[in-house]
Amino acid sequence: MGLDRPMGRDICDDTRGARNLITDVPGVTVGHVTLDEGDVHTGVTAICPAPGDIFHEKVVAACHVMNGFGKSAGLLQVAELGSIETPIVLASTLSVGITHDAVTRYMLEKHPRIGREEGTVNPVVLECNDGYLSDARALAVQKEHVFAAMENAAPDFSEGAAGAGRGMRCFDLKGGIGSASRRIEIGGRVSTLGALVMTNFGEIGNFTMFGENIGRQIAPMIEEKRPEQGSVIVVIATDLPLCARQLGRLCRRAEVGIIRTGGYIGNDSGEVALAFSTARRMPHSADAIFAGEIFPESQMNRLFRAVGSCVEESILSSMLHAETLVGRDGHTARGLREVWG
Amino acid sequence: MGLDRPMGRDICDDTRGARNLITDVPGVTVGHVTLDEGDVHTGVTAICPAPGDIFHEKVVAACHVMNGFGKSAGLLQVAELGSIETPIVLASTLSVGITHDAVTRYMLEKHPRIGREEGTVNPVVLECNDGYLSDARALAVQKEHVFAAMENAAPDFSEGAAGAGRGMRCFDLKGGIGSASRRIEIGGRVSTLGALVMTNFGEIGNFTMFGENIGRQIAPMIEEKRPEQGSVIVVIATDLPLCARQLGRLCRRAEVGIIRTGGYIGNDSGEVALAFSTARRMPHSADAIFAGEIFPESQMNRLFRAVGSCVEESILSSMLHAETLVGRDGHTARGLREVWG
Amino acid sequence: MGLDRPMGRDICDDTRGARNLITDVPGVTVGHVTLDEGDVHTGVTAICPAPGDIFHEKVVAACHVMNGFGKSAGLLQVAELGSIETPIVLASTLSVGITHDAVTRYMLEKHPRIGREEGTVNPVVLECNDGYLSDARALAVQKEHVFAAMENAAPDFSEGAAGAGRGMRCFDLKGGIGSASRRIEIGGRVSTLGALVMTNFGEIGNFTMFGENIGRQIAPMIEEKRPEQGSVIVVIATDLPLCARQLGRLCRRAEVGIIRTGGYIGNDSGEVALAFSTARRMPHSADAIFAGEIFPESQMNRLFRAVGSCVEESILSSMLHAETLVGRDGHTARGLREVWG
Amino acid sequence: MGLDRPMGRDICDDTRGARNLITDVPGVTVGHVTLDEGDVHTGVTAICPAPGDIFHEKVVAACHVMNGFGKSAGLLQVAELGSIETPIVLASTLSVGITHDAVTRYMLEKHPRIGREEGTVNPVVLECNDGYLSDARALAVQKEHVFAAMENAAPDFSEGAAGAGRGMRCFDLKGGIGSASRRIEIGGRVSTLGALVMTNFGEIGNFTMFGENIGRQIAPMIEEKRPEQGSVIVVIATDLPLCARQLGRLCRRAEVGIIRTGGYIGNDSGEVALAFSTARRMPHSADAIFAGEIFPESQMNRLFRAVGSCVEESILSSMLHAETLVGRDGHTARGLREVWG
Repeated sequence: MGLDRPMGRDICDDTRGARNLITDVPGVTVGHVTLDEGDVHTGVTAICPAPGDIFHEKVVAACHVMNGFGKSAGLLQVAELGSIETPIVLASTLSVGITHDAVTRYMLEKHPRIGREEGTVNPVVLECNDGYLSDARALAVQKEHVFAAMENAAPDFSEGAAGAGRGMRCFDLKGGIGSASRRIEIGGRVSTLGALVMTNFGEIGNFTMFGENIGRQIAPMIEEKRPEQGSVIVVIATDLPLCARQLGRLCRRAEVGIIRTGGYIGNDSGEVALAFSTARRMPHSADAIFAGEIFPESQMNRLFRAVGSCVEESILSSMLHAETLVGRDGHTARGLREVWG
Repeated sequence: MGLDRPMGRDICDDTRGARNLITDVPGVTVGHVTLDEGDVHTGVTAICPAPGDIFHEKVVAACHVMNGFGKSAGLLQVAELGSIETPIVLASTLSVGITHDAVTRYMLEKHPRIGREEGTVNPVVLECNDGYLSDARALAVQKEHVFAAMENAAPDFSEGAAGAGRGMRCFDLKGGIGSASRRIEIGGRVSTLGALVMTNFGEIGNFTMFGENIGRQIAPMIEEKRPEQGSVIVVIATDLPLCARQLGRLCRRAEVGIIRTGGYIGNDSGEVALAFSTARRMPHSADAIFAGEIFPESQMNRLFRAVGSCVEESILSSMLHAETLVGRDGHTARGLREVWG
Repeated sequence: MGLDRPMGRDICDDTRGARNLITDVPGVTVGHVTLDEGDVHTGVTAICPAPGDIFHEKVVAACHVMNGFGKSAGLLQVAELGSIETPIVLASTLSVGITHDAVTRYMLEKHPRIGREEGTVNPVVLECNDGYLSDARALAVQKEHVFAAMENAAPDFSEGAAGAGRGMRCFDLKGGIGSASRRIEIGGRVSTLGALVMTNFGEIGNFTMFGENIGRQIAPMIEEKRPEQGSVIVVIATDLPLCARQLGRLCRRAEVGIIRTGGYIGNDSGEVALAFSTARRMPHSADAIFAGEIFPESQMNRLFRAVGSCVEESILSSMLHAETLVGRDGHTARGLREVWG
Repeated sequence: MGLDRPMGRDICDDTRGARNLITDVPGVTVGHVTLDEGDVHTGVTAICPAPGDIFHEKVVAACHVMNGFGKSAGLLQVAELGSIETPIVLASTLSVGITHDAVTRYMLEKHPRIGREEGTVNPVVLECNDGYLSDARALAVQKEHVFAAMENAAPDFSEGAAGAGRGMRCFDLKGGIGSASRRIEIGGRVSTLGALVMTNFGEIGNFTMFGENIGRQIAPMIEEKRPEQGSVIVVIATDLPLCARQLGRLCRRAEVGIIRTGGYIGNDSGEVALAFSTARRMPHSADAIFAGEIFPESQMNRLFRAVGSCVEESILSSMLHAETLVGRDGHTARGLREVWG
């Protein structure tokens, strides 16, 4: 489960969800496959945005590229059509192609009309580069791993060095997968907003925990430092009935959480945010106008605060849950808890 | 009223609205003020997107910049918030500032809480440069003209060399304001989509009317030819319940109509499209989620065809309604009907 | 070679390049692999933007998404960094993943430092859906085919139903790969601009050839008609020293050529344009400011006209070079030359 | 001059420029006009990006809208053409129109061929809403004030509650105009990057100074607190030869500085960044390709760090230079130095 420590700099008054995970949004599930063999420390993480047949009953979605030094795939169609129709899969950079191919095959297996009467399918694959700790050139991830991650998806999942987060580094320490959630009451109705991040960015000197720069204290204990060379992926989920334009506004607040922890959107940091709402399932094909709910713009600030807090806390959670990893060629990333009591 | 001639190349099967004008969309009105004095041939055109208080009950909107060599104002907020809260005013390029100021003052007069308890207001001003036919340096448009155009707005309005279209040139002939509409039946419900254009672009050799290049035949009769130096503004209205993302998709099809008539998005042609839906009024401030209607993506193609047809026909209508004008320094733009029977 | 018939509606005065192909831009090469077995009619087409090591000496590039109902990959990084560092590979939609993986592996083989000291690599894969004529679910394209297409790249290449164009349909006729080029003299220096398209869009009734709608004449001869369901990919090359912003402006004119032939940017037509300049090689890493050339904005109109003409002619060329194909389940697309003398 | 206190959380190793102001970039000048009469506390600030005739010798530029709840004008053309051709003028929201009109008139006076042989001119006007402290409905700013601000522009200028910053609030304290600069040595050549901000955003509880949240300590001393309702404008200047794409990347890092001080991109905070380079003057019209310098992408990280630091420090400087202001209807914003020793 997500962090349970007191929130420090947090400016969001909303309470955490039951698990303090993105899966507090009803219907959202997450699955990992982790590979650890020799110099390979990598994996796959799948986020299933909703139960049932998401190809025929899509979820509303949007994305935002904060820095496009990255290879994430599938975002064109999300931006155009405002929907997601497959699980969202997180992967290692050089495995984007094989992962994309695996999601395609998975959807073809499930839906015999795709590629025939029902056109094509748009896998969404988001990535960071784990090549410092893992032998990325080994291209270890196979179709079966991607299938398994999607099949494994469940409300409970591990944070830290799990799944696609296995080989990630964050602020010169061990990074990985982190998550958090907030309960939001609007007009008497309680809803949930959650975030999940894959963290692979930052330089130790800037590392800031709940408003306190502890990076400069830790820095002398860290031997392996590198100029910012990573990436960070942010996925935001909610059961509030936001339209794609409003979800795009959430995405543009992901940076708030990232910068609070000490990021500065470095040159080679691929930073991508994706947001989806489970409130309204969009039919693959429909003949008539249908009824829905509209979220008032004047209440968006509540959600913006929650995004900043969830993303900040998710990043910290990814680090606090990660153990030290000795990776390929002895490259090491130490766990935050090990260096900072 | 709009064109009533047979449609030639038109690929849209939907029938025209009663007036074949943007004002066939219920609630939309248009007003002109035209200035013709000495070397000044300019004006103002206002499109009121909906009846009543549009500041407190906004309309959903989107915009798209096809070529940004232009000075249109107010688009940032339309893109961010997906709404319009003032009349849309068309003007001459060098008058954008005074027109923006006039709309601001108009809204302040109507709404005493703006600038106090209710924040600010976002005028939308779209422009083309009429400086070839009119003495644009005279800055003839005043606040009163802008007020009058907004007050004049009505379901019936003139096309051709009227309002802000007074001094515009199109394909080296006289351009101006044109409009068209289509009735669209979806799921048993009849709705309307309309367009209004301000045309100031194109070179005679490319001019194509309902699929036939007649520009090359006309070209020898035209003495004053200039390389593409104009602009074109497209406003699209509908009473279908499109969200801002979907309205943005309509905007990106405005180019279809423009290119069919012979445009090629020249370097100095500011080409801007704006679309709005009157179906859902957005409250200035609201506390709770409310009910609305959702338009199925799989029906968008119907609307895309209608946009292409309406914009093409609006451009032609702007020219077919415009008489020859002898402007500043004897500069002349001939009316299409005069040179082509 | 490209078309040699007289240009009809063409408004571009520039003469064609020697081959009238994108490969008239010095250093650009194109390679195909075509698969034809049973119900499979598909392939791969690779465009190598420049000779030598394009990973370490990148070419300046930009892209534009006209309609994002598509799965093209690699565009994020092109937009952010303004460069391309691999061959550009055209593929069938469901093969984007395997193609992306293949380009990754190809680059890893060539560059042992990628994934180690030199970070990652960004494959650019552009796609249309050939699933009507080909058994797309067979996922016939393999790594070896992608490698071979890149290795095959040469100044001469086939147009029509070749490579990734093998199974494409255009205006309910046979589409595929087409290309054209223009020689452009600016300030006494002769340069080249070329285009290559993969055509899979349009409805027969709208088909327009050099300004004349011949689609309505042909339509009765075509039994298999479908609502717009395709896509079109446009790649533009030049040896003029354009910056990424200027190349982006070229991309936004691709639509001019598409619409002239009768396209209307249908709902499910993924329309993507990519442009690159070979004039300036961008080092993978450099310590100091270096000298370059700057293209004056006031000369862009010349290039915009050339883009419109090249793309229009490339589309027509893709159809004029394509023979009738009887594909999976007897689905047939007739060659334009067969139905229209 | 800018701040001279030790930098706390600053992660940028580059030293400050001589004045620690944007005007450390050679040729950049800034001018204010401040209005203080009765309930009116407003003004105009003009940034002249380069000496001489910037209409005919433009500067390369880019912009980025972080949150578009704002009325800034002129950005379309900056984005399309990558250049600025007038002074950049900061203003109060409701005065955008009159300011735009004034810059137009100023340019017409200087350049008699504008509106005739040389087309139009694109004023750039950026704004925040000073309506809490000033009587914004009075529309006090006149053409003469805008002219005077442009004529006043000089290398030395006031920070704090001056010019357009006169009526601004920041973190429930007094905001206004702030600036900072960094000297950057690349390849043996020393260049400068500077920022200027207009601050009108934030809530006291989040206010963070060089990494330390002091807002919660100060909050009990502040009676007038309001939910985030402001805006922030960031202008970045450099004499490094960046292209428009690279300047756009600088703009997207403005948020780093804003968020470090406690901003969270609130719903109604119009946040706009503009960046320009003085290294290469772009001719209004040119016939031939010309020589220039190219900045290597691999050195961008240096600049990103400098942007984050300059913007953060500029925001703090705007507050540290501002005295307490008692504005319209007794509304008060206290100076930071007064409440925090």
